[in-house]
Amino acid sequence: MSLIVQKYGGTSVGDPERIRNVARRILETHAAGNQVVAVVSAMAGETNRLIQIAAKVTGEGKEPTEREMDVLLATGEQTTIALTAMAINAMGGTAVSLTGAQAGIETDGVHTKARISNITPSEVHRLLDEGNIVILAGFQGRTAEGRITTLGRGGSDLTAIAMAAAVDADLCQIFTDVDGVYTCDPRVVPDARKLDEIAYDELLEMASSGSKVMQSRSVEFAKKFGVRFEVRSSLNTNPGTLVREETMSMESVVIRGVSLERDQAKVTITGVGDLPGTASRIFGPVAEANVIIDMIVQNVSKTGITDISFTVNKADLARAEAALKPVLAELGEGVALEAEDGIAKLSVVGIGMRSHAGVAAQMFETLAKAGVNIQMISTSEIKIAVTVAESEIETAAKAVHEAFGLAGG
Amino acid sequence: MSLIVQKYGGTSVGDPERIRNVARRILETHAAGNQVVAVVSAMAGETNRLIQIAAKVTGEGKEPTEREMDVLLATGEQTTIALTAMAINAMGGTAVSLTGAQAGIETDGVHTKARISNITPSEVHRLLDEGNIVILAGFQGRTAEGRITTLGRGGSDLTAIAMAAAVDADLCQIFTDVDGVYTCDPRVVPDARKLDEIAYDELLEMASSGSKVMQSRSVEFAKKFGVRFEVRSSLNTNPGTLVREETMSMESVVIRGVSLERDQAKVTITGVGDLPGTASRIFGPVAEANVIIDMIVQNVSKTGITDISFTVNKADLARAEAALKPVLAELGEGVALEAEDGIAKLSVVGIGMRSHAGVAAQMFETLAKAGVNIQMISTSEIKIAVTVAESEIETAAKAVHEAFGLAGG
Repeated sequence: MSLIVQKYGGTSVGDPERIRNVARRILETHAAGNQVVAVVSAMAGETNRLIQIAAKVTGEGKEPTEREMDVLLATGEQTTIALTAMAINAMGGTAVSLTGAQAGIETDGVHTKARISNITPSEVHRLLDEGNIVILAGFQGRTAEGRITTLGRGGSDLTAIAMAAAVDADLCQIFTDVDGVYTCDPRVVPDARKLDEIAYDELLEMASSGSKVMQSRSVEFAKKFGVRFEVRSSLNTNPGTLVREETMSMESVVIRGVSLERDQAKVTITGVGDLPGTASRIFGPVAEANVIIDMIVQNVSKTGITDISFTVNKADLARAEAALKPVLAELGEGVALEAEDGIAKLSVVGIGMRSHAGVAAQMFETLAKAGVNIQMISTSEIKIAVTVAESEIETAAKAVHEAFGLAGG
Repeated sequence: MSLIVQKYGGTSVGDPERIRNVARRILETHAAGNQVVAVVSAMAGETNRLIQIAAKVTGEGKEPTEREMDVLLATGEQTTIALTAMAINAMGGTAVSLTGAQAGIETDGVHTKARISNITPSEVHRLLDEGNIVILAGFQGRTAEGRITTLGRGGSDLTAIAMAAAVDADLCQIFTDVDGVYTCDPRVVPDARKLDEIAYDELLEMASSGSKVMQSRSVEFAKKFGVRFEVRSSLNTNPGTLVREETMSMESVVIRGVSLERDQAKVTITGVGDLPGTASRIFGPVAEANVIIDMIVQNVSKTGITDISFTVNKADLARAEAALKPVLAELGEGVALEAEDGIAKLSVVGIGMRSHAGVAAQMFETLAKAGVNIQMISTSEIKIAVTVAESEIETAAKAVHEAFGLAGG
């Protein structure tokens, strides 16, 4: 008998009929002879509905207390666990629900984005041993003092992976609305192939490059505790992608996938003196404006004067510019700011890159042949990222996907 | 500094604007130098909304598991406590919310109608001592093992009264949509007067006679633990009615109030042998059919044959008849069933009745003068109830109200 932890997201439990579908899948897994812990999210739309009521109650210009926001948002998953357990019981199964607090998920006290500090799975084990299916609320926990907390974005995935670690599950399945992790976005590259497996680090790099299968924190947690998990669709029974520790054989694959991120913008500060503290004087104000910076590129200077470029989401560009304007004068005479949107980022990811030379050269050559101009380049140990004009991103992605032999067949 | 427990029902917190009104009232009470614990119900309509989703999820003909129904329904009050605390905080106060479980309200394990077994108010005291207003979820608790339970109908009133007892509150205020307890329903008797005070037993008799200010179980709990509480309106600042233990001076008032209950039906079993066990053979099947019986009248028999009459809600009449049909033959030859709806019940209630003779005579004489025919009579120590034709109930109520001098002045 295996112990399986499953996770179903908000779309999968978005209405009563979908909850019944999820109940059937859970029952099938249980009927196949497994113990099952199913983590569920709030029904799609529920969290936004609650946030809107909170805004009405607090009034214009006031932020709801974060402690109370957690009490409010936690009702979303509590509703789903009750409904899912009811559905299973109505179909003849035996399910019981647990809130995060009841399941022994202890967190720190940072409301709305708490971190799991400890899990005491004795109640989960007790209920499983009695023959129950356990339906567990994702996204939530409680502090040591008993306050209700929520885990922030991607919190339900994290609940599933952390609980899988705590109960030493044989398998963790993350059900979502895609079939798994693909070599590239199939809407852009039609012959993109679903991967059978991928290493934690590869998925992390792909996630940070625009492939939004999962939040990085859940993948990092799984990596830290060695939890293998499968990403698969709740809409069909196709096998998904197994996310796991790196193996020797994985290195034979040079490039695992290509990810792309649109709607980027580039800011360049030109004529900056190449002096200690310059970078912090630029990026300090941008961070204070809550703008998330992605790539940063600075070239070696020859004359003591250099240019610093970085990318941000297009939606944040105006805020970044506004934050930087007061700083320009302080940076010296002749310092100027150039901003440009309409750019996109293309990344190739693969742990095989470490042991294979020439990946960057091959990528740049491929893009050149396809007539795509490279604007910025940034690399990590297992990733090469470039920015190109947004109008050329599809051409670029197709060319690179083909050049590295990623197509299915 | 006084410690005040307040309770606001579902209508009082029915939308964001009403929640803000409740928040203002709580803040005013706090600003007057009191410690405040405010018990809130689910927003009006929310419980029904949840029950409907549950029905969709379980499907036709299936009842949701009661354990899970409690998990689901408890989200209703959890939503309100968070929103109410947010509203207070946004107005500059300092409020924290507690679910029933967090507040130490322990119950037995009878889901959907649990009874409070114990309250450990240490967390409530700790939060109050820190200067917080405590917003407490009504209607819910947890078992010793940590399962979520709900208290059933009138549960939020019960939470308020039980918590007032546990923290030894100086005052408990039940805010509702009426100004207090009246000598009679003002829609029927326009000169009905709001009572300044009423004894627990009087309110209990009035509640069981159709004056639906509060569920009997909350009043019984208050009586048992000596919790004085005030019933008052959340829509204005009028003083309400104080419900308290009986005092000597109360006895000088013969009749406290008149209550009426419409939509009653009467069942008479005629020609029944006056033998041991007959009553249980009649009322056993009716109880099994979940029909609640109100008045029961049986006269002394002279010939070994008697008639037994009882009243039920009109809506339950068909079910009561169906349950009794198979029994009639067993009760002997000549036994027949007569059923009649279109009747109503009129009760006069007052602890002064104990020490004043002639109340019944005065009531019957008054009804006779008003031309109202009495069908059945039933009395308790502090109540006289009669049934009359429903078409005559208003005439009857006005006449009795006037005869006992209850009108305002």
